[in-house]
Amino acid sequence: MHIHWSDDEIAYDGSQLRAHWLLARFGLVGDALVGFRGPCRVTADEMADLADLDGPGIAGADMVHFVWESFAAPDLLLAVHRQRLLSAQAAEVLGVLRPGSGLRRSGDDLWVGDGKLSISIATVTPVSSLIHFAVNATAGGAPVRTMSLSELQVEPHAFARQLLERVAEEQQSIDVARAKVRAKGEWR
Amino acid sequence: MHIHWSDDEIAYDGSQLRAHWLLARFGLVGDALVGFRGPCRVTADEMADLADLDGPGIAGADMVHFVWESFAAPDLLLAVHRQRLLSAQAAEVLGVLRPGSGLRRSGDDLWVGDGKLSISIATVTPVSSLIHFAVNATAGGAPVRTMSLSELQVEPHAFARQLLERVAEEQQSIDVARAKVRAKGEWR
Amino acid sequence: MHIHWSDDEIAYDGSQLRAHWLLARFGLVGDALVGFRGPCRVTADEMADLADLDGPGIAGADMVHFVWESFAAPDLLLAVHRQRLLSAQAAEVLGVLRPGSGLRRSGDDLWVGDGKLSISIATVTPVSSLIHFAVNATAGGAPVRTMSLSELQVEPHAFARQLLERVAEEQQSIDVARAKVRAKGEWR
Amino acid sequence: MHIHWSDDEIAYDGSQLRAHWLLARFGLVGDALVGFRGPCRVTADEMADLADLDGPGIAGADMVHFVWESFAAPDLLLAVHRQRLLSAQAAEVLGVLRPGSGLRRSGDDLWVGDGKLSISIATVTPVSSLIHFAVNATAGGAPVRTMSLSELQVEPHAFARQLLERVAEEQQSIDVARAKVRAKGEWR
Amino acid sequence: MHIHWSDDEIAYDGSQLRAHWLLARFGLVGDALVGFRGPCRVTADEMADLADLDGPGIAGADMVHFVWESFAAPDLLLAVHRQRLLSAQAAEVLGVLRPGSGLRRSGDDLWVGDGKLSISIATVTPVSSLIHFAVNATAGGAPVRTMSLSELQVEPHAFARQLLERVAEEQQSIDVARAKVRAKGEWR
Amino acid sequence: MHIHWSDDEIAYDGSQLRAHWLLARFGLVGDALVGFRGPCRVTADEMADLADLDGPGIAGADMVHFVWESFAAPDLLLAVHRQRLLSAQAAEVLGVLRPGSGLRRSGDDLWVGDGKLSISIATVTPVSSLIHFAVNATAGGAPVRTMSLSELQVEPHAFARQLLERVAEEQQSIDVARAKVRAKGEWR
Repeated sequence: MHIHWSDDEIAYDGSQLRAHWLLARFGLVGDALVGFRGPCRVTADEMADLADLDGPGIAGADMVHFVWESFAAPDLLLAVHRQRLLSAQAAEVLGVLRPGSGLRRSGDDLWVGDGKLSISIATVTPVSSLIHFAVNATAGGAPVRTMSLSELQVEPHAFARQLLERVAEEQQSIDVARAKVRAKGEWR
Repeated sequence: MHIHWSDDEIAYDGSQLRAHWLLARFGLVGDALVGFRGPCRVTADEMADLADLDGPGIAGADMVHFVWESFAAPDLLLAVHRQRLLSAQAAEVLGVLRPGSGLRRSGDDLWVGDGKLSISIATVTPVSSLIHFAVNATAGGAPVRTMSLSELQVEPHAFARQLLERVAEEQQSIDVARAKVRAKGEWR
Repeated sequence: MHIHWSDDEIAYDGSQLRAHWLLARFGLVGDALVGFRGPCRVTADEMADLADLDGPGIAGADMVHFVWESFAAPDLLLAVHRQRLLSAQAAEVLGVLRPGSGLRRSGDDLWVGDGKLSISIATVTPVSSLIHFAVNATAGGAPVRTMSLSELQVEPHAFARQLLERVAEEQQSIDVARAKVRAKGEWR
Repeated sequence: MHIHWSDDEIAYDGSQLRAHWLLARFGLVGDALVGFRGPCRVTADEMADLADLDGPGIAGADMVHFVWESFAAPDLLLAVHRQRLLSAQAAEVLGVLRPGSGLRRSGDDLWVGDGKLSISIATVTPVSSLIHFAVNATAGGAPVRTMSLSELQVEPHAFARQLLERVAEEQQSIDVARAKVRAKGEWR
Repeated sequence: MHIHWSDDEIAYDGSQLRAHWLLARFGLVGDALVGFRGPCRVTADEMADLADLDGPGIAGADMVHFVWESFAAPDLLLAVHRQRLLSAQAAEVLGVLRPGSGLRRSGDDLWVGDGKLSISIATVTPVSSLIHFAVNATAGGAPVRTMSLSELQVEPHAFARQLLERVAEEQQSIDVARAKVRAKGEWR
Repeated sequence: MHIHWSDDEIAYDGSQLRAHWLLARFGLVGDALVGFRGPCRVTADEMADLADLDGPGIAGADMVHFVWESFAAPDLLLAVHRQRLLSAQAAEVLGVLRPGSGLRRSGDDLWVGDGKLSISIATVTPVSSLIHFAVNATAGGAPVRTMSLSELQVEPHAFARQLLERVAEEQQSIDVARAKVRAKGEWR
């Protein structure tokens, strides 16, 4: 899989979570995970999570975004597992960059106290699976109480780079694990 | 999925990682995750990970074991993702029970410094997928440098109960997430 | 899977056979089968079966409807098998409620003599599989010769309740069967 | 799919429920359903259903057997649905040949009163799915209370021929249904 | 699978590469491959290959077209393999009809020198997989340097008939191969 | 995928067509295609193709072998398509190295006149798919009339290298094609 950090500021409105956006925007062909920074305001038309449709909205003034598209294994159940693992990986990276913050993962969300640090969704297209995961870089613009990398004193770019690399390494190690295991038989 | 803690001490030798062992031993029908305590010595015949075949052996005098069998989604790639998420969940539970220990997850393994806390494998049978995950309860009996729950001052039963519940809750929330998401279309 | 009978009269026009309608209308999250009563007039835009597009139309003044959405196993071939089994189950329930009626199943349709008792379709969405199955509660409104529960002297609500329960029980028993069977090998 | 009735008497011991037995015995290449008559005594080694391992045994002095192997869609969940539909089809055929017998289907089993008419299992091999379904032709030899075609005054060969044809026709109509349906979209 | 040659001239604009076009146009139900002759001008809206969207266009004044829809195995990875095999089969047929032409296959394209003989795409719909493959019958109308059947002195109809038959035979032999092979186990 | 040519002579007896042989022998982790030279004598126990079990045997004194294991997409139907494409690729490579030989592909076999140049099988293991493809390097040792690279005046090593590279390139281009295509909708 390709990993890429884009220095362009991109305003995320949910339309980026579509098949082949990573190809069109960054020229990346195949499974890819890209990080970038920018504001967030997801339109109702582009909301994938039906639970959000009647909610307070999905927004933030300044977030670090990750968009992951996979063509090789486009199953929704797998995509949700990958999304949960991505959230756990983000928490692990933050735990090293800023130990003792009390950060915790609840499903696909990261929290510090009652402040929500992240947003996320996993879904499918007719040809791929897609994950969006984003954390607040600085405070502001969200319809709910938030926490941000700035308040955690974590540098957004450093966090993003480390997360991109950690995900790529773990996907590589998952492929290796799959290729090294013998099947098992019946108990009796 | 069923979760269950067994108070019986069971000596794990790898043969328990077979289809329908949970059914035969505990009468559990369908997807289930069971925890128990006991020594560990995996025979070469029962080793699923080929990387272990020529290694120092898989053993421990006193471990907390988890065996997870899934019939509903028996794909190996998914199973490895589940295994990684299980390891992350175990680290998260330990992070709450014993903050500041320096525990870290590397793939499916948990470490404290250069002490290996856990062992794990994910594989498939012709009818299911299987995961074994175990952490050292007390020190001793392992062919490598280890860390243990005892050294972390974590009570094994409390840890196991919390992990079982966390996994069941997250699998439930994964099913909910899958059932609430809309598909997305093409970028252009 | 959830089963639910709704006392609300709902006019079925085919738009209900869409992803997450059961979630939006009844708040049911995950695999669910819901029954309700109401007239039927499927618009051409909402017809899933291409064989119906140039046909006499799909309509009935008063029908008992069932809508089944499944996220856990959204394969079209499986969905058609489930639909056929659902039709068979409906015939079995009716055979108990009204023995000797001469009811017969032909594919996904139920007939008494030359009177068509039911309509049905199985299809997929990008995130789920969907089945619609409906039987005429009282005569009238259909573009073809029909039979109805009223003419069979079967109380619609009783029929619906029994069918919902029978389907849920059989899906449960199918899951149990899948979890209790050993794979087989080669003949030689 | 091929359907075939064999006039040879074959003693069924469970070993016939293996991959490519239909190929080796009858020269049939590909998906096939074959019927034959013969005694039944399934050895423990060949029992696929773990629920039977500690039971009274699976036996009958004179049964009409059906063995169905499918290479085109070898999924276990689908195989169990097919098995249930096969049982329903058998009940429907018997309902025409012998109306008013009080025959009922419970899962994969057919009953008349407290007499068990049939046995069945669905499983998988590494390359296919397999179904065995058999009904007692005449009474005797079973470890449980049974009913038989003879007691129902149904001629075994006629029953078998009609069931083989009904299954082939319905599989054909299922393929047609799958090829004629449009997908549906989101409710909102 | 059905194979069919249509004598009607059909102007291909890409809209024919949609689910159930073969059903609507030719009344073919199920997996089918149809050949016909006609001009080609694919509109941007109907281009499936994103690489073509900003390219010189897909057009030809007189081509022999093949459209293949498969409901039985609608996986995109398989569809691309089938498409490549189809291109190879076309080259093999042409190699017999016109030996020594220097025809070569590069991915899904056929070339003679620097003249492009064919165009092709493989994609999916929500219910099927689709392949379009077309070769220039006579020169002209293309935005790139081309080669044509006419320049190769190959009669278009003869070529099409032979290719249709070759594909059908090979798909049949692939099904036979799948049904005759035993699974293998572990090396150690 | 990895490609590798081994200079070691290896006597192929069919046992090499097992899961993880490429890992054990060459240390290759993940999808891999390896070529080597050596005699061939497949034992009955290791024959995967049931059609060969009662045949003249599978043997050759000196062959160029290819073993391909894939963990990423271990479907048997796909494996057979890959095998056919591999045979076509071998024919294409030979057509360039030795034009005008009259070489033709029939299914998975290559022929020159009535001389059989190659043998092949595609199968699955519980964790992967496997393909064996081999061509006679020099004449002799086969139970049927053969053709060989030597008789075609093709240098075995050059052929093998070119085929390995062609397969790797085409698998790469297949992945690219899958990642660049838009799905299509309904005809009406």
